[in-house]
Amino acid sequence: MMAGPDYLLPVDIPGISYFHDTDPFVTETGYTFSKGITIAYHTYGTLNATRNNVIWVCHALTANSRVDDWWSGLFGEGKTLDPTKYFIVCANVLGSCYGTTGARSINPLSGQPYGMDWPLVTIRDWVRAHDRLRMHLGIEEIHLCIGGSCGGHQVLEYAYLIPDRIKHLGLLVTSARESAWAIAGHEAQRLAMMADPTLTENKDSAGAAGMKAARGMALLGYRTIDAYIETQTDVDEKISSLRASSYIQHQGEKLVNRFYAHCYWHLIQTLDTHHLGRGRGIIPEALMQLKMGATIIGIDSDHLIPVSQQLYLMAHLPQADLHILQSPYGHDGFLIETDQINAIFC
Amino acid sequence: MMAGPDYLLPVDIPGISYFHDTDPFVTETGYTFSKGITIAYHTYGTLNATRNNVIWVCHALTANSRVDDWWSGLFGEGKTLDPTKYFIVCANVLGSCYGTTGARSINPLSGQPYGMDWPLVTIRDWVRAHDRLRMHLGIEEIHLCIGGSCGGHQVLEYAYLIPDRIKHLGLLVTSARESAWAIAGHEAQRLAMMADPTLTENKDSAGAAGMKAARGMALLGYRTIDAYIETQTDVDEKISSLRASSYIQHQGEKLVNRFYAHCYWHLIQTLDTHHLGRGRGIIPEALMQLKMGATIIGIDSDHLIPVSQQLYLMAHLPQADLHILQSPYGHDGFLIETDQINAIFC
Repeated sequence: MMAGPDYLLPVDIPGISYFHDTDPFVTETGYTFSKGITIAYHTYGTLNATRNNVIWVCHALTANSRVDDWWSGLFGEGKTLDPTKYFIVCANVLGSCYGTTGARSINPLSGQPYGMDWPLVTIRDWVRAHDRLRMHLGIEEIHLCIGGSCGGHQVLEYAYLIPDRIKHLGLLVTSARESAWAIAGHEAQRLAMMADPTLTENKDSAGAAGMKAARGMALLGYRTIDAYIETQTDVDEKISSLRASSYIQHQGEKLVNRFYAHCYWHLIQTLDTHHLGRGRGIIPEALMQLKMGATIIGIDSDHLIPVSQQLYLMAHLPQADLHILQSPYGHDGFLIETDQINAIFC
Repeated sequence: MMAGPDYLLPVDIPGISYFHDTDPFVTETGYTFSKGITIAYHTYGTLNATRNNVIWVCHALTANSRVDDWWSGLFGEGKTLDPTKYFIVCANVLGSCYGTTGARSINPLSGQPYGMDWPLVTIRDWVRAHDRLRMHLGIEEIHLCIGGSCGGHQVLEYAYLIPDRIKHLGLLVTSARESAWAIAGHEAQRLAMMADPTLTENKDSAGAAGMKAARGMALLGYRTIDAYIETQTDVDEKISSLRASSYIQHQGEKLVNRFYAHCYWHLIQTLDTHHLGRGRGIIPEALMQLKMGATIIGIDSDHLIPVSQQLYLMAHLPQADLHILQSPYGHDGFLIETDQINAIFC
């Protein structure tokens, strides 16, 4: 483990490692991190002699590199992420606040955190940054590259970046392009964050109230109406301070306690850039380039990135199989239905 | 037409009338409007000699009493709302800003607008206020009481209030109780509005940025992912200032130009109180009291108040028929699929 990041993490993560890459990193839109970038990551298990027993996990929006924590049901001997067989790698995305260079990192040019001046980075930038870590770790080949939601966006882009080195894709509740529906939701979240005038302050605590609201909105996309009715309906007859309200408040506060609004703002900007076909002809042509195997998983109750999006992937990926999980948990099901997912991959 | 309201309307509404009821009005929770309330309303057509050719329309959240405008596809000769046959009444709800006493009205006790001090009123208060207008207009019997979304909430409560005077219910995309899902969405909207510190100012313009965000969020519940993908997907490959974002911004601004945040805040508080069973035993028992005819209409793509809620009404209302419309427009379909609705009622 190398030295820690150049700013205070909102939470301390056991077992984290850092790769300080001092080579300049130029984003898709031309912004240059002239002093390079730091990538925070976790590894589990041992890289074999041929350097090809690798599972590369791409995390979703506000998660981090500690995949044994947030995807614990998939992790362990005999499961999809088996550290006794595989060398498992998960890295924090560019722009986040769990150790990788992000919006609350110090901009070496100003000596201040980037804050709202953080540049627009794309999903392609995320995977290009992580590919530097792959080279640093000496990984020749990735046996399985897997992720859910925008983790799946990264899997698709990573497959496009290094098609000969990735042997199989695990694509959960993801899509080839961010939908207008998801972008509209992000814009509503941004409006909430802009309603909070502290967002423009260059402080770690800036924009907390707006992010709390944004998180509340996002949560509605992650679960289903049936799940809310079952778990958040008041049993008594009060007419204010209702249980569903408390739940949203509580979930919003939880994110405020573990995430920076400046990071959240820029991560959802990155989501909006997701478009596998950009500059590559139409999306089906881009998907047809991905000739490795692909396991596509959708969830029947997901209204955020619904099954129609996975059917689209299935129609255009040359070597794919599709599994639609039955789950009451909607989009979040990819974190919860780990028994069903293990049954597919193991 | 009587004298206008005691504050400036955000828009001027042709044909509006006002009923100034000076009797004190006591809400369900015990707040007293000691100087009475004003009800703004529209009527169309002529009340017959027996005073029973009445269609009473209950409007949804941010609408107003001008039903020939916002439900124009249902309005006219040969249609559901036929002013050549019926005396059609629609009144603005208590708390709103289209002429009825609301959160931006002057509180006679302070001489200032109520603002955030507006009391918590319930759907039951809304219909009790409107029933004073019914008596004022000399209406003996309502042939059809109809509304969609929280308009339908009012229809149910109005039927419970004056069961012998209402002959038929038109219940569109509504439910017997506000769901935990809807309440959670309202809470996220409130968090966005609270992130805007101007909300607490006692001005007509207070809380505009927060309401803009809240409206953006609400819109996602009113339509469907397929509708957004079809109409709001960018045709070019830009990675920021996307079409779906502009749409949400534009819709938010439209509401800011026609509604007060203090009114919006309190109207969604009122929605959360909706519970037909409150104080009446369980909901099925309350529904079984409503022995008039009822036409229940759901929309197959509605994710906000979905078909499951209308199936519940159908299971417990003694004399109901159920129609599930096919529509790509989700919850908003009740405003759009007027040909299908006319075919049911005419």
